[in-house]
Amino acid sequence: MTDSDRGILTIVSGFAGSGKGTVMNKLISEHDNYALSVSATSRAPRPGEEEGKSYFFKTREQFEDMIADGMLLEYAEYVGNYYGTPKDFVFAMMDAGKDVILEIEMQGAMQVKEKYPDTLLIFLTPPSADEIYRRLKGRGTETDEVIAKRMKRACEESEYIKDYDFLVINDNINDCTDRVHNIIQSAHHTVSHESGFADMIKEELLGFNTIK
Amino acid sequence: MTDSDRGILTIVSGFAGSGKGTVMNKLISEHDNYALSVSATSRAPRPGEEEGKSYFFKTREQFEDMIADGMLLEYAEYVGNYYGTPKDFVFAMMDAGKDVILEIEMQGAMQVKEKYPDTLLIFLTPPSADEIYRRLKGRGTETDEVIAKRMKRACEESEYIKDYDFLVINDNINDCTDRVHNIIQSAHHTVSHESGFADMIKEELLGFNTIK
Repeated sequence: MTDSDRGILTIVSGFAGSGKGTVMNKLISEHDNYALSVSATSRAPRPGEEEGKSYFFKTREQFEDMIADGMLLEYAEYVGNYYGTPKDFVFAMMDAGKDVILEIEMQGAMQVKEKYPDTLLIFLTPPSADEIYRRLKGRGTETDEVIAKRMKRACEESEYIKDYDFLVINDNINDCTDRVHNIIQSAHHTVSHESGFADMIKEELLGFNTIK
Repeated sequence: MTDSDRGILTIVSGFAGSGKGTVMNKLISEHDNYALSVSATSRAPRPGEEEGKSYFFKTREQFEDMIADGMLLEYAEYVGNYYGTPKDFVFAMMDAGKDVILEIEMQGAMQVKEKYPDTLLIFLTPPSADEIYRRLKGRGTETDEVIAKRMKRACEESEYIKDYDFLVINDNINDCTDRVHNIIQSAHHTVSHESGFADMIKEELLGFNTIK
């Protein structure tokens, strides 16, 4: 297997109400080249959650060993529990030719990009701030206080859009999914991803001009 | 019109036999968002060539004035005649929302990229050096000496692939055209191209959190 056949690593982040989850599910169901990363966590499993599907469940000690051994692409602590992305799982999928998608937040995205600069960073957004508000309100499950908090968070997050590679507006779920798909598929043809092929044809042309 | 609505400037270069011309024609005929740039030249029109369609025909003096006035995106002199890309024409098309494609060689590509770093550089290649040779030979119009020269030129050109953004293998004309199309369409969603939208939603979110 050459570099060219290796999967692309993509991180998808986005504002509340950007439809990240729906886009991920559509990508997975419409195309067979994608795999979603499974996170590790130190929190206890909830009813119905499956080991290796919902999460890889670890004790706090096991998780801290994984951090110490550099086995995580990124991690964070959130209300007393660790959450992170196991490197082995992601790399095994990519080596098998799968385009792996991580749905994580900005801090995690920046940790991964720093270590693996070829990672594709995509940020999803509703078409306007009003629309973010409408979508949060429309869920009918959040209190006004929670909505206000999430709007404030979106405002903070907007400062980091510049560190992403792509900004995709979700004005229509089908168009948005197609855009994300085309962006990831195009990444298979960057000069960096095709450097193995470039070296090969360079060698071939050299040989050609020496012998013939 | 915001930045987001502006067309993308793409340069397509490639080895002999890479099928550049065919891919360009398919893009133009299958999608209405593309425009091909028309070059200026100081050589005399040939029978059947039309002003403003084949070329913009200029005297040597007129062409040198265009160079001096910075009216060309790139230019070169080739067997005593000037060839170049008029800036006005390209920018007017982009402002009208067209994705403009320049089919030019490496030196020209580098001149444009230096002045306009957002320019998308795509390099097309047949799947192998043998295939380049077969396609040249298959035309039946070139002498062995000319073919040898073009193979040598391909070898020199291969050194510059690393300066391009994308390397697309033309193993099948339909797939290759679709790949080039998706690459150019994806470029509409880079954070750089969408910076106007990013600034807008940042402002909106700030306003939201101040007022409400």
